[in-house]
Amino acid sequence: MPPIDLNCDMGEAFGNYPMPNDLVLLEHVTSVNIACGFHAGDPGVMQATVRAALERGVAIGAHPGLPDLQGFGRREMQISMREAYQVTLYQLGALYGFVRAAGGRLAHVKAHGALYNMAARDIELAKAIVEAVRDFDPGLLVYVLAGSKMVDAAAQAGMQSVSEVFADRTYQDDGALTPRTQPNAMIGNEEQAISHALRMATQHEVVSVNNRVISLKAETLCLHGDGEHAVDFAKTIRARLKSEGITVQAPLSR
Amino acid sequence: MPPIDLNCDMGEAFGNYPMPNDLVLLEHVTSVNIACGFHAGDPGVMQATVRAALERGVAIGAHPGLPDLQGFGRREMQISMREAYQVTLYQLGALYGFVRAAGGRLAHVKAHGALYNMAARDIELAKAIVEAVRDFDPGLLVYVLAGSKMVDAAAQAGMQSVSEVFADRTYQDDGALTPRTQPNAMIGNEEQAISHALRMATQHEVVSVNNRVISLKAETLCLHGDGEHAVDFAKTIRARLKSEGITVQAPLSR
Amino acid sequence: MPPIDLNCDMGEAFGNYPMPNDLVLLEHVTSVNIACGFHAGDPGVMQATVRAALERGVAIGAHPGLPDLQGFGRREMQISMREAYQVTLYQLGALYGFVRAAGGRLAHVKAHGALYNMAARDIELAKAIVEAVRDFDPGLLVYVLAGSKMVDAAAQAGMQSVSEVFADRTYQDDGALTPRTQPNAMIGNEEQAISHALRMATQHEVVSVNNRVISLKAETLCLHGDGEHAVDFAKTIRARLKSEGITVQAPLSR
Amino acid sequence: MPPIDLNCDMGEAFGNYPMPNDLVLLEHVTSVNIACGFHAGDPGVMQATVRAALERGVAIGAHPGLPDLQGFGRREMQISMREAYQVTLYQLGALYGFVRAAGGRLAHVKAHGALYNMAARDIELAKAIVEAVRDFDPGLLVYVLAGSKMVDAAAQAGMQSVSEVFADRTYQDDGALTPRTQPNAMIGNEEQAISHALRMATQHEVVSVNNRVISLKAETLCLHGDGEHAVDFAKTIRARLKSEGITVQAPLSR
Repeated sequence: MPPIDLNCDMGEAFGNYPMPNDLVLLEHVTSVNIACGFHAGDPGVMQATVRAALERGVAIGAHPGLPDLQGFGRREMQISMREAYQVTLYQLGALYGFVRAAGGRLAHVKAHGALYNMAARDIELAKAIVEAVRDFDPGLLVYVLAGSKMVDAAAQAGMQSVSEVFADRTYQDDGALTPRTQPNAMIGNEEQAISHALRMATQHEVVSVNNRVISLKAETLCLHGDGEHAVDFAKTIRARLKSEGITVQAPLSR
Repeated sequence: MPPIDLNCDMGEAFGNYPMPNDLVLLEHVTSVNIACGFHAGDPGVMQATVRAALERGVAIGAHPGLPDLQGFGRREMQISMREAYQVTLYQLGALYGFVRAAGGRLAHVKAHGALYNMAARDIELAKAIVEAVRDFDPGLLVYVLAGSKMVDAAAQAGMQSVSEVFADRTYQDDGALTPRTQPNAMIGNEEQAISHALRMATQHEVVSVNNRVISLKAETLCLHGDGEHAVDFAKTIRARLKSEGITVQAPLSR
Repeated sequence: MPPIDLNCDMGEAFGNYPMPNDLVLLEHVTSVNIACGFHAGDPGVMQATVRAALERGVAIGAHPGLPDLQGFGRREMQISMREAYQVTLYQLGALYGFVRAAGGRLAHVKAHGALYNMAARDIELAKAIVEAVRDFDPGLLVYVLAGSKMVDAAAQAGMQSVSEVFADRTYQDDGALTPRTQPNAMIGNEEQAISHALRMATQHEVVSVNNRVISLKAETLCLHGDGEHAVDFAKTIRARLKSEGITVQAPLSR
Repeated sequence: MPPIDLNCDMGEAFGNYPMPNDLVLLEHVTSVNIACGFHAGDPGVMQATVRAALERGVAIGAHPGLPDLQGFGRREMQISMREAYQVTLYQLGALYGFVRAAGGRLAHVKAHGALYNMAARDIELAKAIVEAVRDFDPGLLVYVLAGSKMVDAAAQAGMQSVSEVFADRTYQDDGALTPRTQPNAMIGNEEQAISHALRMATQHEVVSVNNRVISLKAETLCLHGDGEHAVDFAKTIRARLKSEGITVQAPLSR
């Protein structure tokens, strides 16, 4: 059984604004994606989050987003390929600054929010993001939505992708996430979410909202720190993965 | 006669706003300081400026400023030592991203505007900035106002500083620049500016506004691209330096 | 023959960045749309532009845009109806502050760039913008793309709209502007632009890119100050309109 | 016994970031100061806060701050008189937009954070702020630090000021607040804070950190919503003021 990574977005505070529970999953995940100041995070938050991640020994990734702090990077924006390349590279470099200064190693990049979603379905945008990562360091891993255009873009650029699945999100027949605007987008029931996650992790398949069985690669599972039961959920999923014989660890570079 | 570097601030456009003449001195200087997005510049401008500098073969430096785009980083802000460290490291990393992706080498860091001025007189702020540079890469050069606290801060951190002088600015008795708010701050007359610059470059001394001869180290001379005669001035100063037997070149790491 | 208004976007400088030629058309237009700080403009620019407009006696409008300074408000963003209402109201109020403090009168509102374009085709977004204007002051005029959803939204809200046409843009068969991304979007030839503008102003019709004659209402003609021949063009069009017996004046409230 | 106003800063959330307890004191105060988007707040937050205040019937004020979201407007910036005027007027207008659209009335203006503190000791800055308020509407009240330069500036401009005192802050011999950087700046003990506040409200005097009795005008008492006991404290102070025969009400325009 191949191992799986558990990842979580972190460093999403800004200035005077804390992001409650931001670090609660740090002991329960194997990699983190740290906001880089465009959709969330600021230099102080980035430094603190990088240090916390290094102390805990989890893999560190940059989590670049659209330049939209007010919208938390969740509002789609019509950016060009060049702009996608540039905002990715800028934020990647900025986070790398803190990682390097703290004596750490940058392991991966995962686009955030609307940038992630747009790149999942737009191969040109996906290529622009992947190329920014590659031009900075071809040894970085690219976290991508399983089955999306980002997988293809990474392959075309000769970059190693890590396919990401979501425990609390439902899937469409084509493997896309059900948009949050639809009522059945989220899996609120915890036991259902765990079954859903385990099936993806162990059998690399998912049952779509239309009850079709879709195959998908699950190399990293995204957990969210902001729910009430976030820590419990993380503990349970780790225990269940272990009992299924699946090692939980950060992805390895090939 | 020791060599001297000619530097110029570049990459100060933003979004839809060009910075006229931004690159005009590129062929006439030996190093450039590129804005990093806080007081000026944006990811697109940074990429274009880094590429232009690499094509021309001039040494590239990061030019971090205060987070004040509207004030162009020229309004002093009460930031803490930690904040100074963090904003320097963030911007340094961001620019490094573009330099590395373009296959270049980052050579130095020079603080911008109010950050430069505050650090010149405040040793604690100066140390915070220098430490950010050192923690990122101890081989980077730190451009500093000649005779300022930044010189001391670099020395204490074991970093190599490069003392900067200004052709178009007058000096106080203590070696500080005359604040721009005072009427005699600028040297408008071109021939005077050239004499002033040459004296600093060749004799490492300057005549203060009170007619006192002050000694100061001149390892890099800052030129501005925004005047009408900027290119002519740069050409003249290079020719005059050459005729004085002074080599114009980017500073070498010891 | 009904009169026509000539309008121009102004106040698009920001901080240290001038917008060259920003005020050149002030003597040649009858109304101006002043940027409000989100896509361009800042408090200082707004104050100066309001004063210049008041001195010249042209009608003053607020020109709210998307919160995207780097993209100059030209990148479409997925904002909600509520957000459209709120950003319009915020910017409208901010500009009103300067107008009121200077003893002037705010006459109209015209959305900028991507906000203008999105509202032209999305009735819900259009209604949100119009309602913000109406809730602030039902006596304000709403400048709208001729034939667009904004016309309907204004009518539904009981607001007076002013239909805008463009001298330098071509039109589709459905009356929409040809997107700038298409090669035939702009009318570069000056004489053609003048004929095009005059036909719209006098006959309220336009020839589409497919050579179909489309009828459209032309109550205000948008001129741009940034071209080389901007002033000449403005003078010519005014003279030609006069010789056709058309009065050039700011729109009157009914 | 003259009445006293109880005020509280509100609307300090931003985008995705809530400000916990932001509205908890709404039922316990008689006036609120609403952030205007520069140091905190955004168009959505402003709209919601204005509506909540109108529903509760408390007096509404604009709370303009420095353009420093990351620093929450608490970092002093060297701004010019003109800039102080402009940022005040911009934010005042923006908030007025929401108040007017909601059918309410704007009652006062209170500068925030570093802008408040700088204006308290710098008469020129104070005058610039007061003039912006006056030029917008001479009927607005100006909340000012009791005994500060803002009192003088308001008087010189013919504006009515409302002298503000703080229940949880200690005072210097000259009536200035003890800077937060000093260990004795805050009054943590609740009973002490209440005695301190009551003495200011009833006897218009305060005991300084050096045990000197200073007279000061107390027309409005600032309460903070962010402490654990904020609501209890507000209830207690209102009850105690009532038992002393002091009416708690928003300030009246003369």
